Amino acid sequence: MNYSLKLSVGRQGLYDITHKVADCVAGAEVDEGLVTLFLRHTSASLVIQENADPSAREDLECWMNRLVPEDDDLYTHTLEGPDDMPAHIKSALTATNLSIPLNEGKLVLGPWQGIFLWEHRHCRGDREVIVNIMGDG
Amino acid sequence: MNYSLKLSVGRQGLYDITHKVADCVAGAEVDEGLVTLFLRHTSASLVIQENADPSAREDLECWMNRLVPEDDDLYTHTLEGPDDMPAHIKSALTATNLSIPLNEGKLVLGPWQGIFLWEHRHCRGDREVIVNIMGDG
Amino acid sequence: MNYSLKLSVGRQGLYDITHKVADCVAGAEVDEGLVTLFLRHTSASLVIQENADPSAREDLECWMNRLVPEDDDLYTHTLEGPDDMPAHIKSALTATNLSIPLNEGKLVLGPWQGIFLWEHRHCRGDREVIVNIMGDG
Repeated sequence: MNYSLKLSVGRQGLYDITHKVADCVAGAEVDEGLVTLFLRHTSASLVIQENADPSAREDLECWMNRLVPEDDDLYTHTLEGPDDMPAHIKSALTATNLSIPLNEGKLVLGPWQGIFLWEHRHCRGDREVIVNIMGDG
Repeated sequence: MNYSLKLSVGRQGLYDITHKVADCVAGAEVDEGLVTLFLRHTSASLVIQENADPSAREDLECWMNRLVPEDDDLYTHTLEGPDDMPAHIKSALTATNLSIPLNEGKLVLGPWQGIFLWEHRHCRGDREVIVNIMGDG
Repeated sequence: MNYSLKLSVGRQGLYDITHKVADCVAGAEVDEGLVTLFLRHTSASLVIQENADPSAREDLECWMNRLVPEDDDLYTHTLEGPDDMPAHIKSALTATNLSIPLNEGKLVLGPWQGIFLWEHRHCRGDREVIVNIMGDG
């Protein structure tokens, strides 16, 4: 089964989508199988990170912005704004898809793991993640 | 079903393999399911990037070559040439496998997404990508 | 089928788990399908790298430690020790899950590829990887 998650995001940062994915899983009634998330964009990412202390995600964001700054003479791809090329690079350094097994009808995430959409642009609006679920009911 | 894509590449850079993967999908006659690409090498990558403006891919390549230069005193693994260790590092920072859901017999790629083999060596020759397709016809 | 690999690790570094994964595959008796590995932690990674010369993995580790040092004024997330925030960043830059097709009952790894758990903390102890196998016997 495929589900489409439509997400509205307003600024750079990590957005917790764990509950939205878990809702798709609950609806699919698959006991054992595999969930694959696929982001249909090249200037954002999917990432599994710590779900507890928000400072970990803030540090991650700051660190990545320092590694891939907007102000860089290397860029020639600048027509779509100063945050576009850094967003493509961050996308290549992280992930566009994630796969998480299902066991007894639940995602096998560790207790400290959350699933995040990582928006790399300043003001993007709508993002879409396809949630594919395979397995036996 | 598993398909083997044999690819000839001549220099560093991103090679669009979207159409080759789509051809495998068309042959598999699966309506809903999951496509997994697996690269059988550790000095190249698979990546989903913008398929429109080539300048985005050129900037990505330049940026990565600056982050992981060949001329680095840190390397001890130098027997296979100056481009080998940077290639392994780039491989670890990107991806060896990609998973893309199938919906109504088509890859759910966004309109601006392409699938690329990213060659990290200067002159490599042949690469092989396994295309695994699971699902219902 | 899902299997749980419990791994004991003692220090930072790459730990070859190829044989453990292959043992799960042998037990599953699946001829053609897909193996997905999922790491239930956010301060370690899964990575496919060269399995031959250990110097490649040592250089990779050194390079990553230089890119993501412990001594960085940027970090505010420091309560869990100086190696915790770098571990989260390294996790985001690499992978939490890997997918490898099965063909004729075997992982389609290339001849130079191994599967590694990459421990990013100095002294962690136990890690768990879920091995999901889907396909036809």
